[in-house]
Amino acid sequence: MYDENNVFAKILRQEIPSTFIYEDDYVVSFYDIHPKAPTHVLVVPKKPYIDLNDFMQKAEQDEVYHVLKAVQKVAQQLDVVQAGYKVLLNVGKGAGQEVPHLHFHILSNKK
Amino acid sequence: MYDENNVFAKILRQEIPSTFIYEDDYVVSFYDIHPKAPTHVLVVPKKPYIDLNDFMQKAEQDEVYHVLKAVQKVAQQLDVVQAGYKVLLNVGKGAGQEVPHLHFHILSNKK
Repeated sequence: MYDENNVFAKILRQEIPSTFIYEDDYVVSFYDIHPKAPTHVLVVPKKPYIDLNDFMQKAEQDEVYHVLKAVQKVAQQLDVVQAGYKVLLNVGKGAGQEVPHLHFHILSNKK
Repeated sequence: MYDENNVFAKILRQEIPSTFIYEDDYVVSFYDIHPKAPTHVLVVPKKPYIDLNDFMQKAEQDEVYHVLKAVQKVAQQLDVVQAGYKVLLNVGKGAGQEVPHLHFHILSNKK
């Protein structure tokens, strides 16, 4: 069951102020507050998916496409494509997922 | 430019023997030969995409959907959903991408 009070739900409702570096119909993107690399950004779908399992059970093709497209677009916008970047999904608490709302980490050694 | 002689291209052409744990119209999946976790599996699209950038420039919506769907299916098949798992894409040499053919890592602490 999706927890409406998780921190990303609050950010999406603008109850917690956050600076979005990218936004479209499907996602918002902002810097991770505890960066684990020189560049560490999150891409967060607007709809209430708990994790990748939940997303792949519920989302339509166009949404899955546009969310992954947004991840790659944000990497381009951050100008980390040449340097290289990692895209990481932690799926479930046991894998280190800290917030129960689907989010993609983009990590790069380039600042 | 896609390198037709990368190791995953050879695996896909069955020039290098490999045991697929999953296969559908879009991907094959097999164990990483240098595992970095108790479970470490790769999901490799059948079409010749270099990396995520190349994939998002060329692939249609249905292919992107089915590839990501396959990643989640393989995690289910491996029975790591409850324990949790990570999905990792290294995009570019600078980010540790060792083979220039798009592949998703699935990693779990559960054997």
